[in-house]
Amino acid sequence: MKPLTDSTATIAQLKDRVLAFARERDWEQFHAPKNLSMALAAEAGELMEHFLWATPDESRATAANPAKRDKIAEELADVVIYALEFANATKLDVAAAIEAKIAANAKKYPVEKSKGRSVKYTELG
Amino acid sequence: MKPLTDSTATIAQLKDRVLAFARERDWEQFHAPKNLSMALAAEAGELMEHFLWATPDESRATAANPAKRDKIAEELADVVIYALEFANATKLDVAAAIEAKIAANAKKYPVEKSKGRSVKYTELG
Amino acid sequence: MKPLTDSTATIAQLKDRVLAFARERDWEQFHAPKNLSMALAAEAGELMEHFLWATPDESRATAANPAKRDKIAEELADVVIYALEFANATKLDVAAAIEAKIAANAKKYPVEKSKGRSVKYTELG
Amino acid sequence: MKPLTDSTATIAQLKDRVLAFARERDWEQFHAPKNLSMALAAEAGELMEHFLWATPDESRATAANPAKRDKIAEELADVVIYALEFANATKLDVAAAIEAKIAANAKKYPVEKSKGRSVKYTELG
Repeated sequence: MKPLTDSTATIAQLKDRVLAFARERDWEQFHAPKNLSMALAAEAGELMEHFLWATPDESRATAANPAKRDKIAEELADVVIYALEFANATKLDVAAAIEAKIAANAKKYPVEKSKGRSVKYTELG
Repeated sequence: MKPLTDSTATIAQLKDRVLAFARERDWEQFHAPKNLSMALAAEAGELMEHFLWATPDESRATAANPAKRDKIAEELADVVIYALEFANATKLDVAAAIEAKIAANAKKYPVEKSKGRSVKYTELG
Repeated sequence: MKPLTDSTATIAQLKDRVLAFARERDWEQFHAPKNLSMALAAEAGELMEHFLWATPDESRATAANPAKRDKIAEELADVVIYALEFANATKLDVAAAIEAKIAANAKKYPVEKSKGRSVKYTELG
Repeated sequence: MKPLTDSTATIAQLKDRVLAFARERDWEQFHAPKNLSMALAAEAGELMEHFLWATPDESRATAANPAKRDKIAEELADVVIYALEFANATKLDVAAAIEAKIAANAKKYPVEKSKGRSVKYTELG
């Protein structure tokens, strides 16, 4: 198979890869939404662990540090793999869900009110 | 723009969408890896909340319930959006990271030893 | 010092223990609420990892398994230690907050409506 | 009942309060370790949400802000309530587990090596 990269890999291709991996091991039985949401959250926790005591600025340097970069990429991969497995188990279309969410966020966060501000939409005033 | 779906949307296209949204609002300043990893984990927590008290089997029904499905899709979208923003902020290639992780997992979980078993690779014996 | 146990240890004593540990190492500087909330969530993720693929019933057996029990106790300790450090850093009274929350929950979940049901209060009908 | 405060409330008293609340509603059946670890992690996520885009220093101000303080105390209470329910369900002694963990941490992080440094013990050198 050709190596996958973001510029060419579709979500469907990635979903197929993780599904094939699970099927080969007869693991779909374990892939209930409850279990996958837990695994996803646990991996998100591992991703965070790289940045616990850094300031946000320092965390940019951490992520650029060659000694840590591969491990961080691996945790990110774990998160997205579980997200894709969740989508497989629930037959959700990730790209369509993202597009719908961006459209909803665009209404909640109009550019003129939210530019340069990190406040929640409920506090945009 | 054409609606996005998993069968055609590449990771790069989705990354571009979320990046455009952030840039328009001058939000890249907030998108340190530390902050994005927190946001991702918080959204993963919200996804879990739909399944807290269900058994794994019941959680399949929850995810198929039309009254809950849209909300669940929205939480999944939030998770993947933050994962893509994390990848944007750190210049990581998600598809390549997934492929590398699947290859590593294939070694840790050989089919003949892990078939139908949910035990961790350290306990595969 | 006398060994601590739940029957005699007050929250204040436990807060003092974790504070002394942090002060001795000059770690209070790192104990911003943001950082501690991340550490807490990351440790909660590690606690979950013991139960990812188990059913709820199986998870009771996992927690009773002597081979896993110490590790599970350790993750629970990590969670509570960070919660206490969060309370130290923010000068919150944990017991008072718990009491207030239980009172609020008692209103949201009246016994006659919620008995034996795991549904959210917004769906109690 | 006398109001609870950290200076007098023992862990055992708090465990009893949350147990009484659960028993009155016949909720122990839902309190499998798996479910409680998920609920705990989900609440830890809600606690984090107050600090997503703040710097660590700004997060100290957020936690001191009277407009946010009650909500933050409530999320902290939720976290500790689930930790106590987890301890009830698994018959773990929280104080003893904390004491054991502090002792283990004291060995991993000797004062002279870790003073003023946030690095992980594996990198203390």
